[in-house]
Amino acid sequence: MGPEPRLLDLGEDAVVKRLLAALPIPAPDVLVGPGDDCAVIAGSNGETLLLKTDAIVEGVHFLREAPAQKIGRKALARAISDIGAMGGTPKHALVTLVLPPDLTIAYVEGLYRGMAEVATLFGVSIVGGETARGSQIMISVALTGSATAGAVLRSTGRDGDLIWVTGRLGGSIKGHHFDFTPRVKEAGWLTQNFRPTAMMDLSDGLATDLPRLALTSEVGWEIDEALLPISEGCSAQQAWSDGEDYELLFTTDPSIEKHLMMAWVQVFPDVPLTRIGKMVPLAESSSLLQHGWDHFSK
Amino acid sequence: MGPEPRLLDLGEDAVVKRLLAALPIPAPDVLVGPGDDCAVIAGSNGETLLLKTDAIVEGVHFLREAPAQKIGRKALARAISDIGAMGGTPKHALVTLVLPPDLTIAYVEGLYRGMAEVATLFGVSIVGGETARGSQIMISVALTGSATAGAVLRSTGRDGDLIWVTGRLGGSIKGHHFDFTPRVKEAGWLTQNFRPTAMMDLSDGLATDLPRLALTSEVGWEIDEALLPISEGCSAQQAWSDGEDYELLFTTDPSIEKHLMMAWVQVFPDVPLTRIGKMVPLAESSSLLQHGWDHFSK
Repeated sequence: MGPEPRLLDLGEDAVVKRLLAALPIPAPDVLVGPGDDCAVIAGSNGETLLLKTDAIVEGVHFLREAPAQKIGRKALARAISDIGAMGGTPKHALVTLVLPPDLTIAYVEGLYRGMAEVATLFGVSIVGGETARGSQIMISVALTGSATAGAVLRSTGRDGDLIWVTGRLGGSIKGHHFDFTPRVKEAGWLTQNFRPTAMMDLSDGLATDLPRLALTSEVGWEIDEALLPISEGCSAQQAWSDGEDYELLFTTDPSIEKHLMMAWVQVFPDVPLTRIGKMVPLAESSSLLQHGWDHFSK
Repeated sequence: MGPEPRLLDLGEDAVVKRLLAALPIPAPDVLVGPGDDCAVIAGSNGETLLLKTDAIVEGVHFLREAPAQKIGRKALARAISDIGAMGGTPKHALVTLVLPPDLTIAYVEGLYRGMAEVATLFGVSIVGGETARGSQIMISVALTGSATAGAVLRSTGRDGDLIWVTGRLGGSIKGHHFDFTPRVKEAGWLTQNFRPTAMMDLSDGLATDLPRLALTSEVGWEIDEALLPISEGCSAQQAWSDGEDYELLFTTDPSIEKHLMMAWVQVFPDVPLTRIGKMVPLAESSSLLQHGWDHFSK
């Protein structure tokens, strides 16, 4: 008998996916379970409750040497971005901190200052949490949100829809991954005025997140490299594959293209909005997906 | 200049308390923020939303050598106990796992099996979560609950109220800390039929948790050592100071004593219910608190 298989043999994602599938059947009020930006729960009064949890770990998502305030800000802003990406309003946060006891008090104060800063900006109430002792710093944030007009999922894109992104992509590591502003306002405005057919936030990079959205929507996709909104000093390859943009990726009916563009520049003159491609039939998906990749790796 | 003060110099609790106090003012729908078993949020339709987060860390709350299924069960059961202790019904859970990559897949499956077991038992839907890589196993659970009759707080005990506990206390380390059943049913029944004036679950031990309840209720307390329901093979000292009993500690108006006892034994014949003392005026608190301690340390 060989040694028992370990997480690193199969990959964590594959293992967790298998395990989640084996969980008990959720209650009828669970509209969306694991797999989207947030879980979606049917509330009373037609209101929808969004639930999100997100953790960052020292050595994986940040180094201890980074400014504590930026780390705290990022921990909460990431979860806020996920609530926003469903067209929701972030509401109440619970924060779990795992802290090594040799950490300075000034450092922990910095973490809280960063969380308080972004909480204030988005009207989030930090309603509880706890600390535990550990060898690595870990910040886990659970965040609720509400979506009065119903959540915009990532699984509802359609063949023929246009594909859009906000902002500029790539090079987040230079600083944007700490100081990004979650696109809550923009996503809320979109949902009210030009309801996207599907939406998510770009956390792992367009090259990873767009195929995810397409796959769960059961459609293919096609993008035009020349249209990508590239961050200053970045290559198209970086715009395509770098993570942590925290911009919106969404799809809309093609008929609203001109109206959306005209309204957007009035309301958000400082935030680029770019149509980068369109959804295509699923049958063409794998070749197009390959095409997409090849396009950038040549 | 000396070295910068660290968490271990001041104690984590003291630091976190100071930091929580400096957080932005919560929104008006936050009825109870940090400090009780759960946060309490005013919902629509008079329903109350409860929010709880709880984390267990390898080497602090469990050893990796313990059966994974029991660890997973405990991680979720602790949070369920907190929702129950406010008279609430647990609803939706988000699970964040920090996992070392050299962990076996069978081990992670065990963690999930344990969570699924207790989720099924209490009708909890696990609606999402995520995994991150780290050097220690960490399981953080965020759990929502609903309290249709309003949450029972720990801050609303009154002078003259009787003090009660369920079950038997002490010696949890021998196994109860893994296989306890959260008192959700009992707390729900109490809240509907003999609404406690204050309630919490015993996670850190009566010696720590009772003074907490009394302090936040601004009353003192007096208990009779001879009345303590002691677990088999334990001393009164252990019943008083051991943690992880996960029993209910609650207070009631003294007028309902006989009715409560009579009804309880009918409905929960297998769960002891014991009146252990009473709340007294705050003015007598510090000497009584001292008395309580002295009583057991002699």
